Amino acid sequence: MQLTAHQIGILLEGTVEGNPEVTVNQLAKIEEAKSGSLSFLANSKYEQFVYNSGASIIIVNEDFVPVQPIAATLIRVKNAYSAFSVLLEKYDELLKSNKTGIEEPCFIHPSSEIGKDVYIAAFAYISPNVKIGDGSKIYPDVYLADNVTVGKNVTLYSGVKVYFNCIIGDHTIIHSGAIIGSDGFGFANGGEGKYRKVSQIGNVIIEENVEIGSNTTIDRATMGSTIIRKGVKLDNLIQIAHNVEIGSNTVIAAQTGISGSTKIGENCVIGGQVGIVGHISIANGSNIGAKTGVNNSIREENLSWNGSPLMSYRDSLKSQVIIKRLPELEKRILELESKIKDRLK
Amino acid sequence: MQLTAHQIGILLEGTVEGNPEVTVNQLAKIEEAKSGSLSFLANSKYEQFVYNSGASIIIVNEDFVPVQPIAATLIRVKNAYSAFSVLLEKYDELLKSNKTGIEEPCFIHPSSEIGKDVYIAAFAYISPNVKIGDGSKIYPDVYLADNVTVGKNVTLYSGVKVYFNCIIGDHTIIHSGAIIGSDGFGFANGGEGKYRKVSQIGNVIIEENVEIGSNTTIDRATMGSTIIRKGVKLDNLIQIAHNVEIGSNTVIAAQTGISGSTKIGENCVIGGQVGIVGHISIANGSNIGAKTGVNNSIREENLSWNGSPLMSYRDSLKSQVIIKRLPELEKRILELESKIKDRLK
Amino acid sequence: MQLTAHQIGILLEGTVEGNPEVTVNQLAKIEEAKSGSLSFLANSKYEQFVYNSGASIIIVNEDFVPVQPIAATLIRVKNAYSAFSVLLEKYDELLKSNKTGIEEPCFIHPSSEIGKDVYIAAFAYISPNVKIGDGSKIYPDVYLADNVTVGKNVTLYSGVKVYFNCIIGDHTIIHSGAIIGSDGFGFANGGEGKYRKVSQIGNVIIEENVEIGSNTTIDRATMGSTIIRKGVKLDNLIQIAHNVEIGSNTVIAAQTGISGSTKIGENCVIGGQVGIVGHISIANGSNIGAKTGVNNSIREENLSWNGSPLMSYRDSLKSQVIIKRLPELEKRILELESKIKDRLK
Repeated sequence: MQLTAHQIGILLEGTVEGNPEVTVNQLAKIEEAKSGSLSFLANSKYEQFVYNSGASIIIVNEDFVPVQPIAATLIRVKNAYSAFSVLLEKYDELLKSNKTGIEEPCFIHPSSEIGKDVYIAAFAYISPNVKIGDGSKIYPDVYLADNVTVGKNVTLYSGVKVYFNCIIGDHTIIHSGAIIGSDGFGFANGGEGKYRKVSQIGNVIIEENVEIGSNTTIDRATMGSTIIRKGVKLDNLIQIAHNVEIGSNTVIAAQTGISGSTKIGENCVIGGQVGIVGHISIANGSNIGAKTGVNNSIREENLSWNGSPLMSYRDSLKSQVIIKRLPELEKRILELESKIKDRLK
Repeated sequence: MQLTAHQIGILLEGTVEGNPEVTVNQLAKIEEAKSGSLSFLANSKYEQFVYNSGASIIIVNEDFVPVQPIAATLIRVKNAYSAFSVLLEKYDELLKSNKTGIEEPCFIHPSSEIGKDVYIAAFAYISPNVKIGDGSKIYPDVYLADNVTVGKNVTLYSGVKVYFNCIIGDHTIIHSGAIIGSDGFGFANGGEGKYRKVSQIGNVIIEENVEIGSNTTIDRATMGSTIIRKGVKLDNLIQIAHNVEIGSNTVIAAQTGISGSTKIGENCVIGGQVGIVGHISIANGSNIGAKTGVNNSIREENLSWNGSPLMSYRDSLKSQVIIKRLPELEKRILELESKIKDRLK
Repeated sequence: MQLTAHQIGILLEGTVEGNPEVTVNQLAKIEEAKSGSLSFLANSKYEQFVYNSGASIIIVNEDFVPVQPIAATLIRVKNAYSAFSVLLEKYDELLKSNKTGIEEPCFIHPSSEIGKDVYIAAFAYISPNVKIGDGSKIYPDVYLADNVTVGKNVTLYSGVKVYFNCIIGDHTIIHSGAIIGSDGFGFANGGEGKYRKVSQIGNVIIEENVEIGSNTTIDRATMGSTIIRKGVKLDNLIQIAHNVEIGSNTVIAAQTGISGSTKIGENCVIGGQVGIVGHISIANGSNIGAKTGVNNSIREENLSWNGSPLMSYRDSLKSQVIIKRLPELEKRILELESKIKDRLK
């Protein structure tokens, strides 16, 4: 893949500034780019790298005003990050071999329904009454239990396990080792300190355009459904308990855990290692910082939260500053006590 | 499955209040139940839903006193939650196809011993000298290494991996992606900042009636055994390090980690995302809140703990209230300082 | 395996103290050792056990001075822990069956290159253009995607998944369920609150002598490489995001997460459940306590850190002491306020 700045300018509907004949054959980050690389500048934090970058072409936002001369050819576009993403995507398609067909040995129950242009790898296991939509890719060691429904153009990477009756929507991507529909963690008092398993007869519904990270676990509902709404993006090693519902276009970073029956709103952004207790609601547009412990419902929309105990993001920053100075604070109290004592003499 | 209130009353040894001829064909949570549903009320937090519920039949505790009229037929039983659990379980059995027999292709070493009525799925791998007890179910992509012993009526869901010499007790359930017996994290100083692996020659012993969640990891002992006692329930994504012992009927929520050689007592309840350091003991009946960091042994039984640093549950609540008000506290100290200064003039 | 103290003394180049003819046939920890066991004392915390130990032979450091009589035969060596590790390792080799050859059914693409003395288990999947070095072991359900390179004497335990183009160095061990090279968590604003996937075209490079724990996830770089340098040891359930780099001989405990593009130095020791934000650097030799939240770069080398917010280890201990006494602190402020008020009357 060798392209000129002129060609890329046309592709991205951008304006070329500098030599239009310079060519690139790879994509790179601005701080690592060498000659022959195409790079981009979207975040002003990285602007310093533009002036010394070895990149041959740099995609920038149309309103970018350089403060020093730049050696590279610039291509100005409306949104540099989006434009670069488009190129990444095309490159990605070239990189990945487009697998189709059914490899042997695999296990496909005759009662299952497999769509057109599907890839089913060796060692995939398709149980009775499973449905797989057109264009979906089922990699090695994927296990789809009885009655699982997989939509169109779904990618299930190697080792994904889906328990019975679960539903996966169109264009969804699930990464290796993610477990969908394992039993919710429900036990009743069985007497004498023992526990009795509460059967988990519900399922998991994952809507369309969802992406789920590696080794993330989503438990089936006790009754009803655990629901991941359309456009949700879950990172790796996340725990979603039974009967949780996550609103559309909510994004959650790695290692966060959400306890049973909690409802997360739409368009929330939740950091990594957050813990959210069960049976609460989080309002739409909530922004929750990494490592936060959420132990109560958040009712007002579009606010930022942080800390454990939970505080507004602003209060949390203030509180954190003082936590670091607690020994000094105690000293000041001690001094006050001694002064007061002196005065009372 | 269509049943009348009368039939269910007999099944549960309960008292029917209202129309005994009304029929149900599904189970549902009280807040989601529609006509034709059987539901239950166990937790008074949900009582409000009883009065507007669309459920046709509601199971309640025998001492439940409604404060408004209820449209549904009630069935009064000693313990509504337990009674409903029994129904769930029966329904669950109907839902799940009862797999038995050996599917091809699978790998079963001739030196292994397989009991009666066992299910071994395609792509399961049974190594030399493995023993599997009667009635156990081994799903696709389960790997049992050399000399593993699996008891009776054990369920190993798809993708469970068990390293060599480990032992799994009767009636235990292990969910997809759980790893039993991987090497403990042990390294010795190898000089020049390098580490040398310490061989991990012990095993993992899981006793009977244990349930282990998806993608949970339990490391083998360096020497001796990592032990999970009978009746223990572990949620998803939990880390159990080498030589840990967990006492019987202890319950641990998702994403908690327990470091090497720590001993957890019986009948403990440990929340999610808790971290427990190595080489300590936790007394029987300890109750540890979510996200707690336990850095010292807990010697007194049946107490509740919380926070990081570790505090009694009560102290932790008090401390948390003040953490939120730290900026105000500092202001008060500042005012005191200024007043004292004025007075000293 | 039955050995005399005399034989072990020669093997370890140590000095035998006591009966040289006593024999042992197993290894055990000092606090659990019975007659016929060989044990060791390296950490003085365990010295108490030496005096009552049932062990027949105990390996000790050459400068160990007993304060009571010891029944066991002692073998004095330079480093008791290292010496014992050597014995553990030999025992471990005896325990493990040394698998070689190719088991059926497995999937090996004809374009792949397989070295000498390699073990490829049934249900392993080797994609086009994969290279596997001499002496490596590929257990059941391992998936190696297109163009993956595996070095010499690598062990990939059952269920390891490696995405396309990733590279694994010589002598590296990866435990079950670890996922190498899944997509980094990168999404661009797609308008109307929706997200657009940013293709992740980079890879993961794991250098030699690395060990990676069960169910740990390491994401591929957006562009370039996520890099795990030589000698790094990662515990279970760790999250390594895209474009992270971990310096050589750094050790990280379970359930820690490192966000995108962060660079960790060499010879760091990082505890469990630590969270490290993206786009920062951690200096060589940093020591970071369990559950710490690192939200800024650490620039000075060889320091110890703790807490969330991040503090020096010493400050964190001081601060934690006061957090526990916050209610008392508030009371003292209240008293001061009341006294001042009285005096102002």
